[in-house]
Amino acid sequence: MNFELTGTDPASRARAGVLTTGHGVINTPIFMPVGTVGSVKALTQEQLRQDVQAQIILGNTYHLYLRPGLEVLSAAGGLHKFNGWERPILTDSGGYQVFSLAANRKIKEEGVVFQSHIDGSRHLFTPESVMDIQRTIGADIIMAFDECPPYPSTYAYARKSMELTHRWLDRCIQRLAETSPAYGHEQTLFPIVQGSTFKDLRTISATEIAARECAGNAIGGLSVGEPEQDMYEMCELVCDILPKDKPRYLMGVGTPWNILENIALGVDMFDCVMPTRNGRNGMLFTWNGVINIRNKKWATDFSPIDAQSSCFASRNYSRAYLRHLFVAGEYLSLTLASMHNLRFYLELVAEARQQILAGTFAAWKASMIPQLKTRL
Amino acid sequence: MNFELTGTDPASRARAGVLTTGHGVINTPIFMPVGTVGSVKALTQEQLRQDVQAQIILGNTYHLYLRPGLEVLSAAGGLHKFNGWERPILTDSGGYQVFSLAANRKIKEEGVVFQSHIDGSRHLFTPESVMDIQRTIGADIIMAFDECPPYPSTYAYARKSMELTHRWLDRCIQRLAETSPAYGHEQTLFPIVQGSTFKDLRTISATEIAARECAGNAIGGLSVGEPEQDMYEMCELVCDILPKDKPRYLMGVGTPWNILENIALGVDMFDCVMPTRNGRNGMLFTWNGVINIRNKKWATDFSPIDAQSSCFASRNYSRAYLRHLFVAGEYLSLTLASMHNLRFYLELVAEARQQILAGTFAAWKASMIPQLKTRL
Repeated sequence: MNFELTGTDPASRARAGVLTTGHGVINTPIFMPVGTVGSVKALTQEQLRQDVQAQIILGNTYHLYLRPGLEVLSAAGGLHKFNGWERPILTDSGGYQVFSLAANRKIKEEGVVFQSHIDGSRHLFTPESVMDIQRTIGADIIMAFDECPPYPSTYAYARKSMELTHRWLDRCIQRLAETSPAYGHEQTLFPIVQGSTFKDLRTISATEIAARECAGNAIGGLSVGEPEQDMYEMCELVCDILPKDKPRYLMGVGTPWNILENIALGVDMFDCVMPTRNGRNGMLFTWNGVINIRNKKWATDFSPIDAQSSCFASRNYSRAYLRHLFVAGEYLSLTLASMHNLRFYLELVAEARQQILAGTFAAWKASMIPQLKTRL
Repeated sequence: MNFELTGTDPASRARAGVLTTGHGVINTPIFMPVGTVGSVKALTQEQLRQDVQAQIILGNTYHLYLRPGLEVLSAAGGLHKFNGWERPILTDSGGYQVFSLAANRKIKEEGVVFQSHIDGSRHLFTPESVMDIQRTIGADIIMAFDECPPYPSTYAYARKSMELTHRWLDRCIQRLAETSPAYGHEQTLFPIVQGSTFKDLRTISATEIAARECAGNAIGGLSVGEPEQDMYEMCELVCDILPKDKPRYLMGVGTPWNILENIALGVDMFDCVMPTRNGRNGMLFTWNGVINIRNKKWATDFSPIDAQSSCFASRNYSRAYLRHLFVAGEYLSLTLASMHNLRFYLELVAEARQQILAGTFAAWKASMIPQLKTRL
């Protein structure tokens, strides 16, 4: 994997870059649609390529390990071949899902014993097994196995959890050094900074993570319920410690304005279920603000969902039609809303990139944020 | 509307034709995907055009009248403009839905009083109001308001019901003569033959319907629970009475083999929810038989859904991936299965047409039916 910085904003810490993987190039800052079990919900891979214009998507180790399982993924030749997505894939390590979804989880030094949320079956995830699973999935970017402490956590818990995450990281690095990519293409590890909302823990964690000199780094444990201001503060502190010449990935963030604020702090990569999940509930993000498409006021509004958007959904369907689909409970509503929101997120980061390269990002961001937050 | 017969099969009553409407040409025999409330479930209109290659879709008067309602459809300039489908549309009259879905329906000479299945609100459908609604929807082909008697019905009930349908038909014809198309393009009425499974009633009804000299004719009240053999017998009897130079539409039919058998009897047009509804339950129709895609046996079958199909779903996705999507409950499963089944139905009628034009339909049908019925 190679990362090249191609521009920085003079009035913020925002950066534009190019990330090159075995499955192609990603222009940063980038938003990565979430394809939990190997499908970005309600969209075909063709719609993702052509309409959303996604450059990289996420898969989830916990979900893919349970379904379809490693036997199927291995027989398929990895997730790229299984789901037909030929561009880069990043897999989340499953740490977050083990703690948020699985039943009866028990954290030990060795790893985590948990029960599947699907059938109650018992499983053990260790740093080593999670690396092996991600080898088998075949993601281009693979995440270290970490513990994501809940918010709020006590200082003592957050510290203990962070230290465990660091020890697990070294086992992840060791395991990857002993094994090879499963399908020929390079697989690059991103370690994860933890430390909850405690500044000194975040400082320790970012310093420890930076010292591993991995090809890219991630910030975890944010956007888990803490005030937005805390998220920005932690992100700023961590970005200032993580190496400048490596991509920085802020996990699970967020709203369009969260994304712009964190780009300004030096983040290069984002993922979040918000555009798809909120889209499926009728919440649409546009260049002029947020729409609740179920609202009666759109019933005879035959204008595009977002006149400024290049999205297939906006070029072909009206607010009135999409509202009708939501009110009538039609599946097409899920497809069009997911497509629209994801395309908007991709347009947003692409425009942010242009503004960074033009040296105008900070002023543009300041003018955009109130507009994006407007309730239409 | 114009209908031209371009070929007939020497060994059956099968016909190939070209139906020309204000929104373009339809090659018959044809299958029409069902888009109940203005959306063929789980598919974009682009997927319907490019991947399914649908030539005409259905809308439903009962559903569209309730949601989005006439005010919205009228403001949009009709259903074509509202949903962005520029090819022909046929609207079912709502008769069938009033009898199958609505609560507390009461049939009178004037029409039917019923309560909405959505909110319990009370409505009156008359032959006149249903013609007016279909004018407002703007379908190219509009169906007469009929009563579809349940199966089984007594002879007395079926006769009374049929006579009411005939009287209602004359009121439909009268109303259309007094009104104009709402959006400039031609709207053509198809009357509906009823008579349950009673030969003499079907004979009377087909004779009455034929006497109206409408531009096309439909056969209703079949595929409602009667044995397949009864359906074929009634269809054959009715087709022999209906004029040869007008298209014949058999409503709500059916399986792939039902379609081939009824083409052999002289039917030109079909619609059915089976490819979409059964598809959403994981039942896939292929050139080699029927697949239950949820079956464990497909878990590592990385071959196309149907190697013989030109469908986007078969060209891009494997049985193993589609099975995974179904097992994991992913929305994409609904899209791919619906697309696949509809494309298969369209390929089936297109191939039937080629066989008719080549004079080889009857032999081809005989060899195909056991193959189509095979459980894979």
